[in-house]
This record gives sequence, structure tokens and C-alpha cells, in this order.
Amino acid sequence: MDNKKEALAKHYEWNGKFEINSRVPLITREDLALAYTPGVAEACLTIEENPDKAYELTRKNNLVAVITNGTAVLGLGSIGPTASMPVMEGKCVLFKAFADIDAFPITIQSKEVDIIVQTIEQIGNSFGGINLEDIAAPECFEVERRLKASLDIPVFHDDQHGTAIVVAAGLINALKLVHKSFETIKVVVNGAGSAGIAVAKHLLNFGVRNLILTDKAGILANDTPNLNNEQQHMTTVTNLTNQHGNLSHALQDADVFIGVSVANILTLEMIQNMKPDPIVFAMANPVPEIMPDLATESGVAVIGTGRSDFPNQINNVLAFPGIFKGALSVRASDINEAMKVAASHAIASLIATDELRADYVIPGALDPRVCPAVTKAVKEAAIKTRVNRI
Amino acid sequence: MDNKKEALAKHYEWNGKFEINSRVPLITREDLALAYTPGVAEACLTIEENPDKAYELTRKNNLVAVITNGTAVLGLGSIGPTASMPVMEGKCVLFKAFADIDAFPITIQSKEVDIIVQTIEQIGNSFGGINLEDIAAPECFEVERRLKASLDIPVFHDDQHGTAIVVAAGLINALKLVHKSFETIKVVVNGAGSAGIAVAKHLLNFGVRNLILTDKAGILANDTPNLNNEQQHMTTVTNLTNQHGNLSHALQDADVFIGVSVANILTLEMIQNMKPDPIVFAMANPVPEIMPDLATESGVAVIGTGRSDFPNQINNVLAFPGIFKGALSVRASDINEAMKVAASHAIASLIATDELRADYVIPGALDPRVCPAVTKAVKEAAIKTRVNRI
Repeated sequence: MDNKKEALAKHYEWNGKFEINSRVPLITREDLALAYTPGVAEACLTIEENPDKAYELTRKNNLVAVITNGTAVLGLGSIGPTASMPVMEGKCVLFKAFADIDAFPITIQSKEVDIIVQTIEQIGNSFGGINLEDIAAPECFEVERRLKASLDIPVFHDDQHGTAIVVAAGLINALKLVHKSFETIKVVVNGAGSAGIAVAKHLLNFGVRNLILTDKAGILANDTPNLNNEQQHMTTVTNLTNQHGNLSHALQDADVFIGVSVANILTLEMIQNMKPDPIVFAMANPVPEIMPDLATESGVAVIGTGRSDFPNQINNVLAFPGIFKGALSVRASDINEAMKVAASHAIASLIATDELRADYVIPGALDPRVCPAVTKAVKEAAIKTRVNRI
Repeated sequence: MDNKKEALAKHYEWNGKFEINSRVPLITREDLALAYTPGVAEACLTIEENPDKAYELTRKNNLVAVITNGTAVLGLGSIGPTASMPVMEGKCVLFKAFADIDAFPITIQSKEVDIIVQTIEQIGNSFGGINLEDIAAPECFEVERRLKASLDIPVFHDDQHGTAIVVAAGLINALKLVHKSFETIKVVVNGAGSAGIAVAKHLLNFGVRNLILTDKAGILANDTPNLNNEQQHMTTVTNLTNQHGNLSHALQDADVFIGVSVANILTLEMIQNMKPDPIVFAMANPVPEIMPDLATESGVAVIGTGRSDFPNQINNVLAFPGIFKGALSVRASDINEAMKVAASHAIASLIATDELRADYVIPGALDPRVCPAVTKAVKEAAIKTRVNRI
């Protein structure tokens, strides 16, 4: 394909997608004496006395690490740390372009939770936040949980929460269109990996009561064999009527289908068994769980995908820049549930009620209003929940 | 002091001395599709097939990590990782200003060799080189040795080798002035920490046979108690006549004194017991082992210090930018002895024989010829010793 060739040629031309530049003049002896020795000593001693001064005297105030071990990279799978770097560099320059955040890509060799956690604990301190990226489930859950507990800066696994935040934003608006509410809908999330589980958890925060997670083996119930710890936990907060069966069974009378799974798995028949005005977010990449035209023909009221060439693109770039910008702006120690919920509302609110249409429930990825709105909402939520340092 | 206040004020103004910028356009949907998904996939797959392509498709070709645990920071001592960051940021922007290298500062929490080594092994792969900085002796020796063995990129502890390279450069020229040779001189290195030991080792590479290391407890001999492993090793390659005594004894009939120790330790009497035309590099900071005017009055032929306000400043900035630039230019897997020796010769050679004076044996820190000359010499030495990948 021409596009592939062009993208590869561009990568050769770029020789890396980021660079590191100096913010200080370094021309004269006096410049050196201020920025390096002996002038730097005063800044060091000031931080030694009060470590929070690192936010003022070093780049910590605007610095995010984008960290992966390359075990779940885009649609490519476990390609390893070295091969994953172009994605991490891409993510870093998105941080810059969308939120003027300085993001630096770091790859970790190990697949072992203990080593990943220890490595990030060792180096995390000098950043203002940690964006975990493309780490496979179930390891990603424990890695994030342990780092959130041990580091006093935000740790955010974007594959989980970025997706969840944007899905919820789209769903807020889609529900308005079909006049349904979170409390009464039945939601099926297909794909019980990192994104699916995070979407499910996040929707519970919005008041969803009837939620079923499905995976290759069908509905996740409390007696389903071979579940990982996180999936096991999810069976205690979802599928409260303890249903069993396959995706088709799960979708009986469902109002919402959210797919983070595989191509073309959602059939016409399944949709016909859903409640009227079904909402479908089919985010498998590059081929969604159902193609938008087929979904619409089948009676789907609102269809969203992960692709930029269809309406309603569920794109993490709507969330992570503003999430981190908001957190950094108040030197937050965490990105908590309230901040994620606030981000979803902020994204959704950019589409006024009279602008809402079936093909416009979520702002475009390049909408310049998004990052500032998310930043503001996340900042306010951080202050309200007291994870702010300033 | 006004200078201290100004430097601190500048650090507050800068809010961090580096920033990370994008090298790619990110304005349109097409830009995103090339630099991120889906375009990035081709670059990933190309690296997965051939990991060396990371040098072309990511920033690895020009990227150096500046890593510390904050245990031996400038003259400040063990101020810890957080407080050391202003120095690391300063070092990074020196890399940029002098060699256009993208350098990124990383701090490690632990003082334990095993953890430091494992952390750097986990994250080192995506860099083109690792500059270890301000890690205390004796841990620094084992950290560097183990990382050189396990990583296939250059690992270089600047406090050791940067200093050693520049000292040797100055000594090459100083010896010319006094018509002496490495093979016949007696050298005393006072200070058996990381810099002193590295200076001693490096001078052995230049043919010095008669070399004595001294420390607080006096001359290092093979029966000196409480030596660390590295010091113990040094007693097998220095002090071959097994002398004992204090600094004063060591300096009897010495030709060269190299101090990486403490202020004002070198006395007039000691100098008078040295051979005619003694050479003194007194690099204690900020107050040298002897002040230059007193040294000159005492009959010292060539005096160098670490300070920019005296002639013959022994400054690492003469070495590390070109060392890494040369190594990166051929994707070197190591910075070996031959490359370090070549760097010393390159620095020395910039002062022509007819320009040599007692107060000009080493080029100035801002001399723009230095980095290109070192780069070229190091590159050639890398190729000659076959540590180059291209």
C-alpha cells in the first residue's frame, strides 16, 4: 500500500520524531556558570531542603514519561520494547502537539510485573506524571495499581482509561439522542482485556447497573473458568443476575454494545435482538466489530468506531493530553475516578444539545476546544478531591 | 552572594532547562496517520525484523541518557536524586549546546549497585549511549563495569573518564613544554575516588610507569588497609616499588601532581621536593589544592585547575560532547580505551607547538574546534577497534 510506504519513508526521513532542546542560553562563560556549575548548586540545595521545589526548578512541572514494555502495541501485539518505540515517540509528540506537554518515551525490557514496577519506581520521581502505554493485560492492572500506590505522581494507563473516558463521553451524548439514561440501560462490553475492563469500570461510575462483560469464551460470570484476577473481580460488580452464554445471549435486550474486540463479530441478528435505538461503539482496529453502513442499515441509532474515516471516532487523543495537562497544572499526586469522570463530561459537553446528531456525538480528534476543556475539568476535579499540591 | 541569587532566580524563571519538541508536523489528520496510527506500524514492523533499524527509525541515533542517583553531586555530595536534577538538566543542555546531542536526564532512587544496574539495563536499550553522572565511588566502578558488559551501547561515567581524558590532554602539552615524556615521569595522583582512579588508569594507557595514588591515608600500597576493590586493584598497577608514607613522601622527586582532592593540601615545601619544572593540575573545587599564583611563585612550570577564572581549565565539557558524538556517529557499542586515548590526543593537538605556553596547554572550554576534533578522533578509533556498527 502506498500509505504504508509513505509512512515508512517519512520515518526514515525524520530519524526519530522528537528532539530535546535547551531552554537556556549557553554561549558565554557566564551562561555556563548560571545554568551549570557553580550556579546550579543553589537550585540543588533549594530542592534538597524542599523537594516540592523540583516542580519549579526542574522540568518536572511539565514532564510526562510514556512507558511501555511493548507487549500489546496497537494492533501489532507483543512486538517487544525496541520495535514499539516509534509508537511511543508518536505518543510523545501528540502530547506536545495537543497539550504542549514534554513527554519522553521509555521502553522496559521485562514482561515481569515486579521488574516493571521496580524500574518505574526507580526512575519515576523526576517526572510530573507517568503514562503507561501498550502493556498487556493482565500485567497492566497490577503494574498500574502498585505504581499508583507507591508513587506520589499520577500514573495512568492510557489503553485502559483513555479509551474508557472517551467511550463514556460519546455515550453521554448518544443516550441524550435516544432519550435513555445510564441507570436503566443494559450495556454489553465485548473484550475483557485492559480497555474493556476499564470501560466497564468507568461506566459503573456513571451509574450503569446492568452491564455484562463478554470475551471469546462468552459472558463473564462468577463461575467462568480461567479468569485473571481483574476479570474475576469484574464478575462481582457486573453481570449481577449471573447470566451465562455467548455474545448473542448477552445482547438480548441490550441498549448498548461496546466492542474492543475483533472484526465483524457483531451480526445483524444480534442487533435485531437488542432494544430499540441501539447504540454501538465498535472499536476493533482497523476493521470494526461491524461496519458503520451495515450497522445503520440494521437499525443502530448511533454508531461510533475507532477510525478517523467514519463519524464518531473514539480516539484517546481526546482525553490523555487534557488529563495530564490538568493534573500537571495543580501538581496532582494522582489521576483519580473523579478526574476521569470530569474528563468524560467535559468532552461530551462540547457538543451542544442542538448540535447533537447520530453522526456527531463526539468531538473530532482535532477539535481545538477539547484539550482546554478537559484540562479545566480535570484540574477542578483534582482540587475538589484534594489530590492537588497547589 | 549575588551570583548565587541570580543563578537561583534564573532557575525559577526557566522552570526546567530543557524541553522536548516534535520533529514532525502534527496538524492534519494525514499528519497523524503518518506519525501515529496507522502509519507508525510499518516502522515498528521494520524494527521488529531488524532491531538495528531503530537507529534510523527512532531517535536512538542521537539520544543519550544522563543518569545519576545523586550520591556524589558536584561539590555538594550525596544530595539525593531529586535535588541532583538541576545538575543533570544542565549536563543535558551542555550536550545539546556543544554537540547537538539529545540528552535526557534520569534519576534513580537507589544506592544499591544491583538495583541501579538492573534499572539501567531495563531502560537503556532505546538510547544510543548512557552517560553515568555523579554516582559515588566505589559503587560507580561496578555499575559501569556491569553495564558495559550487559548493554551493547556505550556506557561512560563522565566523572571518571571525562576528567581523565582532559587531564591527559593537558599533560601531553605540558610535558612538551618541559621536555619530559610519559615513560620517564613520576606522577602522583592525590584522591583515590572515581576521578583519581580513572586519571591514574588513563595515564597508564599513555605509557606512564611511575605512578603513585595517594588518599587521606597516604600512599596506596598493596598492604594499605580498608581499600575498596578498585583501589586494591590499582595497587597492583601503580606504586610498583611499593612505597609507603604520606603525600609529602609521595611527591619526593615527582614530576607531576594531579589533585582531585581538597583545598590547599599542596604546600610550597612539597613542591620544592619535586623534580625541576613540576607540573600541577590542582582540580579541587571551588578552591584548588594550591592557588595558581602561589604555585607559580613556588616554581611550578605549568599549573591547571578546574576553574574558569584561571588559565588551563580542566573541564569535562572538552571531552564528553565529542566522545558521545563520535560514538553515536558510528553507532558504537562501547567507548573503549582507544577512543578515550584518541580523545585526549585530539584535544591536545588543537594547540600547535608554537602556540604552547605555560598558561595555554589546554583549549578553552568554549573553543568551537574541540567537539568536532574529538568527534572525528573518537569515530576513527571506534572504527579501528571495531566497536562501530556502521
